[in-house]
Order: sequence, then C-alpha cells, then structure tokens
Amino acid sequence: MADNISLKRRREGPSASFRPNVDPSSPASLARQLYLALREAIADGRLDAGERLPSTRLAAGEWRLARGTVAEAYDILIAEGYAVARQGSGTYIASGAQEGLSKAGAARQSEPGSPRRAISVAVTRVMTTGPSLARQKPLPFVTGRIGHDERTAGLLNRIAGRHINYAFDGYGDIQGEPALRAAIVAHLAVSRGVRCAAEQVFITAGTQQALDLAFRVLASPGDSVIVEDPCYPPARQCLALNGAEIVGLPVDHQGLMTEKLSALPPPALFYVTPSNQYPVGAVLSLPRRLELLAYAREHGSWIVEDDYDSEFRYDGHPIASLQGLDQANRVLYTGTFSKALLPSLRLGYLIVPPDLVPAFRAIRPALDVCPPTFQQRVVADFLVEGYFPAHLRRLRDRLRASRDLLAGLLRERLADHLCVVLPEQGITLTAKSTGTWTSDMAVSRAALEKGVVVMPLSRMNVATSDTSRLLLGFSGLSEQEADTGTRLLAEVFRERAFAAERR
Amino acid sequence: MADNISLKRRREGPSASFRPNVDPSSPASLARQLYLALREAIADGRLDAGERLPSTRLAAGEWRLARGTVAEAYDILIAEGYAVARQGSGTYIASGAQEGLSKAGAARQSEPGSPRRAISVAVTRVMTTGPSLARQKPLPFVTGRIGHDERTAGLLNRIAGRHINYAFDGYGDIQGEPALRAAIVAHLAVSRGVRCAAEQVFITAGTQQALDLAFRVLASPGDSVIVEDPCYPPARQCLALNGAEIVGLPVDHQGLMTEKLSALPPPALFYVTPSNQYPVGAVLSLPRRLELLAYAREHGSWIVEDDYDSEFRYDGHPIASLQGLDQANRVLYTGTFSKALLPSLRLGYLIVPPDLVPAFRAIRPALDVCPPTFQQRVVADFLVEGYFPAHLRRLRDRLRASRDLLAGLLRERLADHLCVVLPEQGITLTAKSTGTWTSDMAVSRAALEKGVVVMPLSRMNVATSDTSRLLLGFSGLSEQEADTGTRLLAEVFRERAFAAERR
Repeated sequence: MADNISLKRRREGPSASFRPNVDPSSPASLARQLYLALREAIADGRLDAGERLPSTRLAAGEWRLARGTVAEAYDILIAEGYAVARQGSGTYIASGAQEGLSKAGAARQSEPGSPRRAISVAVTRVMTTGPSLARQKPLPFVTGRIGHDERTAGLLNRIAGRHINYAFDGYGDIQGEPALRAAIVAHLAVSRGVRCAAEQVFITAGTQQALDLAFRVLASPGDSVIVEDPCYPPARQCLALNGAEIVGLPVDHQGLMTEKLSALPPPALFYVTPSNQYPVGAVLSLPRRLELLAYAREHGSWIVEDDYDSEFRYDGHPIASLQGLDQANRVLYTGTFSKALLPSLRLGYLIVPPDLVPAFRAIRPALDVCPPTFQQRVVADFLVEGYFPAHLRRLRDRLRASRDLLAGLLRERLADHLCVVLPEQGITLTAKSTGTWTSDMAVSRAALEKGVVVMPLSRMNVATSDTSRLLLGFSGLSEQEADTGTRLLAEVFRERAFAAERR
Repeated sequence: MADNISLKRRREGPSASFRPNVDPSSPASLARQLYLALREAIADGRLDAGERLPSTRLAAGEWRLARGTVAEAYDILIAEGYAVARQGSGTYIASGAQEGLSKAGAARQSEPGSPRRAISVAVTRVMTTGPSLARQKPLPFVTGRIGHDERTAGLLNRIAGRHINYAFDGYGDIQGEPALRAAIVAHLAVSRGVRCAAEQVFITAGTQQALDLAFRVLASPGDSVIVEDPCYPPARQCLALNGAEIVGLPVDHQGLMTEKLSALPPPALFYVTPSNQYPVGAVLSLPRRLELLAYAREHGSWIVEDDYDSEFRYDGHPIASLQGLDQANRVLYTGTFSKALLPSLRLGYLIVPPDLVPAFRAIRPALDVCPPTFQQRVVADFLVEGYFPAHLRRLRDRLRASRDLLAGLLRERLADHLCVVLPEQGITLTAKSTGTWTSDMAVSRAALEKGVVVMPLSRMNVATSDTSRLLLGFSGLSEQEADTGTRLLAEVFRERAFAAERR
C-alpha cells in the first residue's frame, strides 16, 4: 500500500492542492466537516469526475487530520454516491457527481425521503469496499460444505426426539446451556489443550457471532487490529463493521510473521488462525506462538484465536491451541459445530479469560440474548454420550479420501498449470500457478462460466499482492463431481491463456 | 439535565479552571488526548478524588470540543477506574485515583497484563452507566414470563416431530426460511396492517437482535437517536453499544410528545413503541403518528417501530402499525415470538424498507449468518396450519384474567399506596404512588427483600425524573402468586414509610 501511495503521488494534482477548512471546536465532527468541504469542491468543479482522491494516509498528512477522519469522510461520499471505491486502487469522484449536487442543492435536508440517506459509515464501508460475502453456488470445489453422514443423522434425530418439549418457558442461560458448555470444555481439553472452566464459555450461533461478540468487547471504533494477510473475509468484514482499523501482517509457511511486529504500533487485538492459517494453510510455529503471546502480554493486546477446523487433521501431529499456552489470560478461543457437525445447527462457542466474563455477560442481553436451548441440548447429549469422536473419525476418513482424490486428479490433469499443496488439516487445498497464469481473478471468472468454483486467494489479500493462488474445497465432494470438476477446469486452461496480464 | 448543569455550575470550581491542551492534527484522537490531559491533572492533584467533572455539555462548550469527544474521554477514565459515573448525577474522580496513577506510572503500557486494559468504550459505557440487564428472579410480578399452554405445546411437539431431520446440509437462507417469512407477512397484514413482501423480512433471534441489526445499519457511532422517555432498557443498551448519542423525548398519555421535536436537531433514527409505549403503556395517537411520519420523511430520519406485544390487546380497538401508515419507506418494523409463543424459540423478525434490503443482506453473513432452520420450520407450520389465532385467543383470555385478578387485589389491599392503571394491552401494569412514597427504587428494594419483584419505572428514565411509578408483570402469574405477592407488598408499605425523601 505504502508503495502505491508514493508512486501515485504526483498524479494527484488537483486534489492535492485542495485544502479543507475544518474547525475542531465546531459541534460537527471533523469527518463531517471534511465531507462537506469535499462535496463543495465537487459541486464547484475543483474536484472532477474520475479524479482520484489522495489516499487516506497522504490526505491525513497534508490536511493535518487523523487518517480515520479522512476515511470516514470518504465513506460518506461513497455512501451518497459522490465517490466510488475501487478495490486496491483508491477512491474516485463518481461520474455525474457534480450534476447530482447541483440538482440536489447543497443541503442534505433537501432530499426528503431519499433512500440513500444515512446508512451507517461502517456498513457503507463494508458494502462499497469489502469483498462480497454472497453465498457461492453448490458447484464442484465450493468451500465450506460438509456432506451428510447417515449414522450421525440417525443419532441426532433419536436424541432430538427426546428433547422436543415446548413446555419450556424461559429464555435459557445467557452463556448457553451448562451441560453443553461442560461437554465442550471436556472435549477441547483433550483434543486441543484448551484450559478453561465452563463459566468462561459463551455458546454462540457459530464462529461469526463469536467473533462479533469478541470484537465488540475488545475494540472501539478506530482501534487498530492486526490480522493475518491474507485473511478470512467474513472475519475482516466483521472487524470493519465494528469500526476497526485493519492492519495486515504477512503470513509465510510458518504462519504469521511475528518478526515484523516491531514495525507496527501495538494493536488492541490480533485475529489469528494459528492451527491452520486460512486460506494459506500454514501452522504457526511454536517459537512464533511464544513470541506472539509474549508480545500480547507485554503490550496488553488481546488475541482472538479462531480454531475453525482443528477437528480435521489428517497427517502430522496437531499443535495444541494458543489458548493452552497462554499464561497471561490474553487469548480468546473460538470454534464451531458448523463444520464438525452441521451448519444448520448454528452453534459455536467463544471462550474468554475469566476477567472478561462480566463484560460479555453485561452486553449479551442487549444483543441476541442467547441461542435457542433445544439444539444445544441435542448437541450436549451427542457429546456427553460419547458419539463425537467416532463421528469425527468417520468424517475425517471421508474428507482425507476426498482430499487425496482431488489432489490426484489435479496432479494428473492440471500439472502444467497448477502446483497442488496437500493440506495436513482442514477442508480446502491451495493450488499455486506453475507460471502459465498470473491472475487468479481471471481464472476464477472463467472457471465459474464453466460451472466450477475456484476461489481466488487475492480476494483475501489485505495489503499483499500475490495473485497466483486458488483455493479449492474438497468437503462434500462426490467422486463424480471431482471427475467433472477437474475435467472442466482443465478445459478452462486449454481454451484460454490468462497471460494477458503478463505482457 | 439542562437545569442540573446550570445549578451546579458554580460548584465545579477546580475542574472548570482546567483547560486541556489538544491538537487536532495529532494522530491521537481528540478524546484520547483529552483523556491523557485529564489523567495528568488527576496525577498532579489539579483534579481531586470526589470532585465532580463538568457535564459533557458544559465541558464541550468550555473546552471547544464535541460533546461526544468529552463523553469518550470520560468513558476511558471510568473504564480504567480513575473516575466513576453516578446515574443521574455525573462523573466523579474516583477515590485513590491519584495514588493509582503515581503507582502505575503515566504510560498505559507499563501495566502489562492488566485485565482492565482496552474493553471497548461502548461496552465500558454500558457496564458503568446503564441499568444492568441481569435476569430477575422468577418471583411474583416479574415481567416477561408467559405461562405454559398445554394445547399449544402438544401441537408444537407434534409438528417438531416431523421436522427433525439432521440430514440437512447447509446454513439456511440468510433472511430466514421463506415459508416462515411468508407466514409472518400474512399474519401481520391482517392483525397489524403491516404492508410488505416476504423479501423485506429478516428472521432474527428475537427483538434484541432485530434492534441490533437495525441500529448497526442505520446509525454510525456519535449519531443522535431519539428514544421515548422513559425507554425500554435493553433497547437503550443496544443503542449505547452501537455508539449512539441517546436523546430522550418525553411521553404523555398519548405517547411520544412529537410537538417537542422542533427543539431538537433531526436524529438519524427514532426508536419507538407506538402500540403500547414501554413501560408507560400509552398508545401513540393518530395525529402524532402522522406528525412523526411527516417529520421522518422531511428530515430523512429512520423510525424503528418495536411492536413487541401487539398480540395481547384486551379492550378498545387496536391501532394499526406505524409501518402500515408510512408512505415514504422510513419505518422498520420489529416483532417477536418470545411473548406470543415461546422465548426459548429465539425467533423474531425485522421488516425493512425495500431500499434497505441490500444493506442488511450484505452485513448478515458477517454477523450471526442466520437463525437455525429447524425451529423456523416448526413455527412456519404452526402459522400456516392456522393454529396461531386460536392460540392467541387462549393466551389473551388467560392474560386478561391475570390482569383483572392482580388489579383487583392491588385495589383491595394497596389502595392507600398505589393507584393502578388497567392496561388495554400488554403483559404489565403500572402502579402510581398515591403520595405515601416518592422513591420507586426504595420501594422496589424493600419489596425484593420480601420476595416480590416490582420494577421501579425511574430505572428507565432517560432525562425525566419521575420516581412515583412501579411496573408489575402479570403474565404467567398463578392465583396463588397473585394472592401471596399482593399480601407481601402490602406488608412492605405497612412496615416502612418510604417518606424519608419527602422531607
């Protein structure tokens, strides 16, 4: 990002000469004043349609404002249609912005009933800049599916039968059913080395809600949050919705590059996937784990550990959770039953340090209150009665077979184009370009036209610019789909070159 | 509030002479700078333990800062224990603050591992200033209970039996099950005059989640939101968590006093309970409904209409929803199955104007994703198969009987102390002091010692100061409980005078 800014600096002529007149003692926020000044400059033609606004960093320096203030003003312009954000490129004055302003008049109040008014800044930012989280079609290689398991379904149905009782008259425990929390604690102690009491567990509607709860409690709008780069998009969106200033720290084959931390100001929190970095698949090494924990302890930062797919380890030894290594109560741990059991259950969990329990308890009644009790009781029994380990073994065997099948077919049919990295854990594999293509986005678009979903990893980049990797899901993949999918993908590369961007 | 400030102005000697040195061009926010300046003043003794800080309004004026900036700085001081907020009175320097600062040193970083670090400003504010949302004991007159209905439970159990099928492999629709949305649209069109399509409905985990979704999309941190005064505490907490600047507009027997709107700047949104104002029980009159809608249309404000208990109307004609009167797509409508069916279902709904659907769809995947499908299907069938109206009739008859029983006993046994207002709708009744007591808080505390829950209405005051009303819940109240509860409450008034504050 920093490179981009200095390269493009001299191209920012007119907007660089623009200087807003803001008054810190005014009741209007600085962002609002800057927004009004920019709008005036658009209206009187000082800023032209198509013109690129200076980056928030550059603008903040030149106009002597906080970077967040500039970003907020830009967000309002975008929300109102006077500017557009182009991913990875910057913010531009929208075509027709001047005409729109002269028609609408200067005052916002003169647009009665305009549906564009006042969608929140954070939501606007997510809608206009973040990657869309629209659901992908259930085509071959889509990520996140878990196939049906006959035996598990039968067991769950039988357990559910005895829990149906709509006589229950209450909201349920604000942290979730005690029986489920206790069962989760016992399971994680053995499988992940997580050390906690049931009183530290909050049952949630899956990982996303766990992240949202954590981000709300741990970060104020404008606080900086360090994420892995590339980063899981829904987590990033959730951070953006909570007003966080997102900073990406690169990932290599040993996970988050903690040695680069010293170049950054200490963040309010880290969001990390140490067991199986999403989407790259690296395992955070032990020295780096210790370094991250020491850093968090020293600087008082929180760490949110997303252990989303630790149940599916095929080879090698699983590394225990970061939470289990933490001596200073800085780590919050989250996991989900969406992959390990069923997504339609909408059940996950967040484990918080003892000191934070009161804060989470205080705000939960004002949010979703708690998840429904019925499904919690079904899953609690499934765990307590000992069905979970055998279920996971069956699932793991099936997933390993799917992984090996897909990797084999890709190596057989696409070796000229893709270099496949066999994951030791998880439900996705990463395929790297052998050099015949450089735009993962272009490949992904062409594949989708053929009916195959391969996700471009660059969609998850925060500040890095690698465009040579694709992500393929193998969970819930039938033999038939694996065969058809790889044939179609081979056709994509046969028919088109994708070398346009190499010129 | 305004009166308080001018009265106490001359008592604010030392802090009024304090003048913070803030620099708008610094990368640190103004709030952070103000916080540091205040902390320094505490450390060197310019601000003493027990001293009252100037109100945010006064301070903003004197220090030439936005009021939100001052509030944020105070919140940090409170979060770190250097100041305490006393409800309705102000913010005071905490005892031991100076000692704490000299021990800890000036830099925050020097407190490694301190559990107090960096809970978000909004969460801190809710924890330190708002009313607690801790669950009340299930004693007589607790609010929000709905008793068990044998016939409804049987029907639900039978329907649930045919929906248990854990073969389902997916997350479900991001807006909720289409069948449930369609059934809700049909029900509300007839019962509440709500006009919408199923595409505008978002199924939520109850009212609170609906409010949280709406507030996130419609208000940015610092935006002003007008609420009824007194106001439903969980809604207010949810607004505070979303960083809203809450402004109370008084309520009389015709609901929100819209004629007072002209004295306020236009808010980003209104949060209102027009069918049955919570907690006062007023119905917003038709002229005021039209005035509110015209105002929202003219100023581009949103209105969130919480129609939480419209199913329970005993007397008089129900007034149709505000949403149904809205010609300008400014109203969002929310309701819940927690009272009308069962709280443990965790199901409610939010109906948004067509233009807002994309914004809500864009953010939902980053939050809870969607509610579990199973319970949605059960409730959808319950509605589609026509059981809901008969269920509501049974429930309404039972609730009316409970209301009349409780009102009768209160009038018989507590006429000297309480004047009972018989509600035409809802599951609570308001009892006003006949003059023998003036502190609803003191009565409530004494009643709780006897094992009776009477909620002090002043707990819900935003800026008004009425302390002469109590709220009693009659839903789920047995004859036995009504008898015992009223006897105990009579004892409370016999044994103690509560006249201390009348001197």
